[in-house]
Amino acid sequence: MSFKEKGLLVVLSGPSGVGKGTVCKALRNRGSSLQYSISVTTRKPREGEIDGVHYFFRTRDQFQQMIENEQLLEWAEYVGNFYGTPIDYVRKTLDDGKDVILEIEVQGALQVKHRFPDGLFIFLAPPNLNELKKRIVGRGTETAELIESRMNVARSEMELMQNYNYVVENDQVEKACDRIEAIVLAEHCRVDRLIGKYQNNEGADGL
Amino acid sequence: MSFKEKGLLVVLSGPSGVGKGTVCKALRNRGSSLQYSISVTTRKPREGEIDGVHYFFRTRDQFQQMIENEQLLEWAEYVGNFYGTPIDYVRKTLDDGKDVILEIEVQGALQVKHRFPDGLFIFLAPPNLNELKKRIVGRGTETAELIESRMNVARSEMELMQNYNYVVENDQVEKACDRIEAIVLAEHCRVDRLIGKYQNNEGADGL
Repeated sequence: MSFKEKGLLVVLSGPSGVGKGTVCKALRNRGSSLQYSISVTTRKPREGEIDGVHYFFRTRDQFQQMIENEQLLEWAEYVGNFYGTPIDYVRKTLDDGKDVILEIEVQGALQVKHRFPDGLFIFLAPPNLNELKKRIVGRGTETAELIESRMNVARSEMELMQNYNYVVENDQVEKACDRIEAIVLAEHCRVDRLIGKYQNNEGADGL
Repeated sequence: MSFKEKGLLVVLSGPSGVGKGTVCKALRNRGSSLQYSISVTTRKPREGEIDGVHYFFRTRDQFQQMIENEQLLEWAEYVGNFYGTPIDYVRKTLDDGKDVILEIEVQGALQVKHRFPDGLFIFLAPPNLNELKKRIVGRGTETAELIESRMNVARSEMELMQNYNYVVENDQVEKACDRIEAIVLAEHCRVDRLIGKYQNNEGADGL
């Protein structure tokens, strides 16, 4: 077969608290064919976490070296620790024809778009901001001041939606998963991705 | 609610013999929410066919008048009869927020694209041209010469694929329906269609 479709890079992002992790976990449980990348982090492993399974645990020096060597597709600092996505795994999996999903913060998503403009950027949105507030309050650990500051961040994060291709409302986790799976399936049917298959006269399909 | 999403115009087309009618019927049987437009024709009603249900039956003069009044979204002549899609029904249904599907020949699809460039153009493709030939031969009524001439038409129709947004392989009818439904669902999630909902601060969702 002379036409080989590359995998899709699916970037799932959205404001903090919108439920990216929950949706990603639900997609996994459905047995979707999406491949999940393993992040690199400088934070200490928690009990039960295994290097190379849950995260790649690295020192700050090692992480810094990866940034300098451009081995990270995106990275961010969060509560004093660094987190990043190794670019090697992503490239290999896409070349292998498999779809990769990254679940990352909005800042990281913008970095990825710079490197992979053909990626499929999905913005996970709360049904409304009150709902998001409820979820943030629901964690029960934040002061009123911190909640207001998080809401301000969320409002500004909502404005980044325009940089994405799709917006999926996380009103119900299963519905959000349906939409994400539909988006991936639909993108595989785009003419600009498939036309090579039909234009290539030597293709196995004999067209 | 101040944001109202318009319906999508879905145009399902592809080479003759690819199975457009079968796929459309299967979509209907699934109870998809797509609305089907009723065509206008100058051919005589067959037994059991009801005006306004299966077709709008019109005289050639009436049909000609509809063309002149620009009341048809697209029209074509086939075996001496005229067939067309009334534009009124399509506009009203879209404004009402419902999705409309048109199952038409490739020439008609190009006419529609001219009027509705935002439509969602899906090219139904045979798994390969040999398969298409089998289907044409399978009808059992065509001479070798006619079959070859149909195949030439099919080959040139395949080249029109580049004018479409999506290509759906009709390898299995149910799979083709899955893909079409996924495409419609995904298109409803496109940021450029939904951003008005999130940018409008007076929206019912309180964003």
